[in-house]
Order: sequence, then C-alpha cells, then structure tokens
Amino acid sequence: MRRRLLLALAIAGWAVAGSDALAQINPLASWNDGAAKKAIVDFVQRTTTDGGADFVPPPERIAVFDNDGTLWTEQPVYFQFAFALDRVKQLAPQHPEWQSREPFKSVLTGNMAGLVASSEKGVLEVIAATHSGMTTAEFARTVTDWMANAGHPRFKRPYLDFVYQPMIELLAYLRSHGFKTFIVSGGGVAFMRPWTEKVYGIPPEQVVGSSDVVKFVMQQPDKPVLMKEAKVEFIDDGPGKPVGINRFIGRQPIFAFGNSDGDQQMLEWTAAGGGLRFMGLVHHTDAVREYAYDRQSHIGKLDKAWDEAVRRKWTVVDMKADWR
Amino acid sequence: MRRRLLLALAIAGWAVAGSDALAQINPLASWNDGAAKKAIVDFVQRTTTDGGADFVPPPERIAVFDNDGTLWTEQPVYFQFAFALDRVKQLAPQHPEWQSREPFKSVLTGNMAGLVASSEKGVLEVIAATHSGMTTAEFARTVTDWMANAGHPRFKRPYLDFVYQPMIELLAYLRSHGFKTFIVSGGGVAFMRPWTEKVYGIPPEQVVGSSDVVKFVMQQPDKPVLMKEAKVEFIDDGPGKPVGINRFIGRQPIFAFGNSDGDQQMLEWTAAGGGLRFMGLVHHTDAVREYAYDRQSHIGKLDKAWDEAVRRKWTVVDMKADWR
Repeated sequence: MRRRLLLALAIAGWAVAGSDALAQINPLASWNDGAAKKAIVDFVQRTTTDGGADFVPPPERIAVFDNDGTLWTEQPVYFQFAFALDRVKQLAPQHPEWQSREPFKSVLTGNMAGLVASSEKGVLEVIAATHSGMTTAEFARTVTDWMANAGHPRFKRPYLDFVYQPMIELLAYLRSHGFKTFIVSGGGVAFMRPWTEKVYGIPPEQVVGSSDVVKFVMQQPDKPVLMKEAKVEFIDDGPGKPVGINRFIGRQPIFAFGNSDGDQQMLEWTAAGGGLRFMGLVHHTDAVREYAYDRQSHIGKLDKAWDEAVRRKWTVVDMKADWR
Repeated sequence: MRRRLLLALAIAGWAVAGSDALAQINPLASWNDGAAKKAIVDFVQRTTTDGGADFVPPPERIAVFDNDGTLWTEQPVYFQFAFALDRVKQLAPQHPEWQSREPFKSVLTGNMAGLVASSEKGVLEVIAATHSGMTTAEFARTVTDWMANAGHPRFKRPYLDFVYQPMIELLAYLRSHGFKTFIVSGGGVAFMRPWTEKVYGIPPEQVVGSSDVVKFVMQQPDKPVLMKEAKVEFIDDGPGKPVGINRFIGRQPIFAFGNSDGDQQMLEWTAAGGGLRFMGLVHHTDAVREYAYDRQSHIGKLDKAWDEAVRRKWTVVDMKADWR
C-alpha cells in the first residue's frame, strides 16, 4: 500500500515537475560539502518547514538567478556577443558595404583590436545589426541554429555545454521544494528564451532580460508579426535588475544568485525583504575547468558586490573548491 | 484502493492548484448550454487529448484574458479611475493648492463635467498624482485598503464583487486542464497585482498591464525601495497587447478572451499561431445585472473587433443569454 501511494505521488510529481523529481534523490550532488552548500540547504529547510519560524508559503518562494557567469560561462566574451559576431559574418554577403565600414570591417577581418577601438558605439551597432530588422520568430530561429552549430573558441565545444552542472542541480533542488525559478539577466531576453526551458527547466515566461523595442505589424491580411527594432527598450542590469524583477515578477524574491557587480542591486533588493533571505555570489576561481577572474575583469567584474557580500555575510561560492 | 488513489491525487491536486480542483467536479456551472460554452469545451478537449491531431503540450497552453469588461465590470468608469478619484479626495488635505487647481478642483467638488472638459490631459494628471511619488509597497497598500472599503456607485457593493463568476469558473477550468492563465490588461499592473491571486487565482508574475517608470533608490543604508515615478513606461492596450505578451510571456497564446476593440490585436496575434486557437469576446448585453453597451460606448467600445469576430467566426459571448 505504501508503495502504491509513493507511486501515485511520484506520477503526480513527475507531471508537475518533470525530471526535477530526480533532484530529490541526490540533490546538489556536484556540490562539495562546505559552507556554501550548507547555507543553501539550511535556507531551504528553514523556509519550507511548515510551522517553522522562517516558513515561507510556496507562492512567495521566488528564486532569481543571473545568467552570464552564474548559470553558464561568460568568458572570453559574453556568448551573446559571440553570436552577434558570427551573425555579422553570416549576413555579410547581403551587406557588401560592411567590407569597408567600421565596426563591421573589423569583425569581418577578425580585427578585435579595431572593434574594441570602436568602443561601446561599435558594439551596439553590431548588436543592432544582428538583433533587429526581423520578426521575433525569425530571430528565435537564428539563435536556435547558432546554438546547435557554434563552438566555444577555447574549449571547442557547443556553448550549451558551458552551463554549470551544480547550478542545474540547485535550480532543480529549489523547484523540488516549491520554489519558482527565474532568470534575471543583463543578456537579451530574446536570446535566452529559445533554450532556457530545455537547458535550465526555466520557461520563457520566467526569463527577465534586456530587450529591444518590438512592434506589432500586420504584414498581410490576418497575418500579424512582431518586428524587432534597432532601439533598446530596457537594460536589465545593475539597478535595472530590481526594476525588471518588479516589472515582470511583481514580488520580492527570497533567494538570489549572481556573480558580478551587475547583480549587486538584485541581491540588495532581495535582502531588503522581511524574514529569512538567501543572497549568493559565484566567485570564478577555476582557471583550468573554466576561468579565474574578479576585481579586474573586463566583463563580469566582481568588486563592490564582493565587498558587500563579505560585510553582510552573504554566501560566496568558490567555484574551484565548492564545485566537484 | 481506488479511493486511496483518488485521495492521493486529490491531495497532490490540491497542493498544486488549490481550489481549482473543484473545477473538475462541475466546470462552467454558471454557463448556459449554448454555442459559447460548447466552443470552449470543444477547444479544451481537442487541445488536451493526448494523441489527438490538435494536442498541445502543457507548457504551450497559454491563455490570456483582458481584465476590465472581461473578468470584471468596467462601468460607469474603469474601477482604477474610481480609485484615483477617491485618492484625490483622501490626499486633498496634503495638497491645499488642489482646491483651486484643475483638474483636482473638479474632482473635489464632484464636477465630473469639468473633469471631462479637462480631457485626457486632466485624466492623466489625476492618475499621475495618485499613482506616483510613493514606493511600490506603499502603493500596493493603498490599493488593498481601497478595495476593502470602497463601493460601486450604482450597486453599492465592494468592487471585488464585480468579478464575473462564469469567468472565474473558466479560469479554473482551463487551469485544471494544464493551462497557464494570464491577465493582459490596459489597466495598471501595480493596481491589479495586489488582489488578482486571491480573486482570480492568477499570481502577480502572470499579470501583464500598463506601467509607470519605477526607480531603484537606496533610501537608507542597506534599505532600498522602488519608487513609482510620474512617467508612463508602457501602455498595454491595442497593438501594445501582443507586444506585452511577447515581453512578459515570450510565447504565443493559444486561447484569448477580451471584450473591446482594445483587445483586437491580442486576438489577432493569438489567431496567428499555427494550429487550433480559441478567440473569444464578451458582449455586454445585460443592462439589469450589469450594463449593456457596445459600438457607442465611451469605454470598452466593441465595434471593429466585433466585426472581425463575426467575419472570422470567433466566439462572441452574449452575457445575458450565456451567463446564468
């Protein structure tokens, strides 16, 4: 009889949470025993123990995660920027003028110094040229194609191999305890949504990110499309992260994980809620399996947020030591 | 044994969907048998029958609902505007200058003709004065207080009594069949989120609406707040509705319900997806239990969307005949 009940519950659980049910068998298997793992497990047990002083009802169990550098690698350049550079090369035959026009000329000749010299304006031009002027459906298709075919320059493997197994386990562990998991990333929402459900178990409607203006256009009678325009609508970074959380989620998270100064305000906003809260940072310390960087990095700089984490006793994950 | 299994499933269902479990016993009890009810039930059965030609996997079962005039009454004025007028009266002691300044003077003296004469600019000024200059948490509190205390001018009952029971049943019926239900409203997202979970079973993160600019402000050390500013960020109406759906949900709905021309593009965008789709309009035909209006109404005008619904054979609910 007991077996039958377990079976019924297992089937119900499966329908609700899919493979997340596995998270209950050996949760956080890739985390070494240490302060970080202990802080996570303690927090989850205290907030999910019915009748306990720190109990949080399931609808309020909102967990937010940065993406670049927190759920997957962000070096040597944000993967979305690698996508943009590859798209410039793919689209070049339709744009003969790019052969002689910066910043495209530098991209096409592999002159990264020239691209960097064109500074932020050049980078934004590359993003605009590769992320707009098509429908949302067409853009999603180019992202999916690129993910299937492109490879990381150092490790020569598909970009989706660079998601962190310990974080996949953490997402599943939280969901198996009634948490709703969200991405809150400076990256483009349209770049993430085509693959986050498959890779992280996070559906499109739980992905918050930066976005371009999108317009409703009746292309043919009864055939509307949404067109991506070359105009930034929202930057979901730094103080934009709590704003994005408010806009998309409308609740204050109780659990937040980031890895850089761009996540500082998201952690501060999470900490500002009443009751027990978890704030975590990934510190990139593993130059062999990944990359080692912090205060001096050109992207994913971890400096002020690190100082604040130490001062306020937030959890800092030492990637090399804490992850198996 | 069968009873035990049912019990186990009922407990699991309860944990997942709360009182929605009741929807399975007598779904759509307040809908009279007729074309509208039949169209809904047929659609749900065809899209949720595993192995059928029209089967849609649960993650893609996105259902969107307009709020004003679709889930609750919108006459004689949008309830959010009634809230704004009441707030002007409450805040007047702190603003002595309002006694002699339009549009506030008209509001305070009950001179609705004067307010209407001040046109859209005046209305926007009233909204701005009552919806900004406070934190998001403070605003949510004023909404909750008002909902608990204010009453409808004609029916003398709390505004939350004006949600449509047949639509509550429809929301629960859809959820019990694996649909995820969203509000996509021209109303303010900050005005709706404090009560939609309790009233409709729709959590804050599934409410899409119009919004003001919100800023992250460190009010005191380690005590950040989000301040609502007197600046419109997004109008979730007309062509803004598919844009809002893309921004917040990131998937194309398969089911959409509205009641006015402001919902036309949302229905068109839903219809544009591949496969079986449901598009519905509520037609306000019941002057006794509610209000009767359509092509000539000053708010919630149903004209072009109605013509399109007839042409494309979308479902039009006759409130008086279809709702018990």
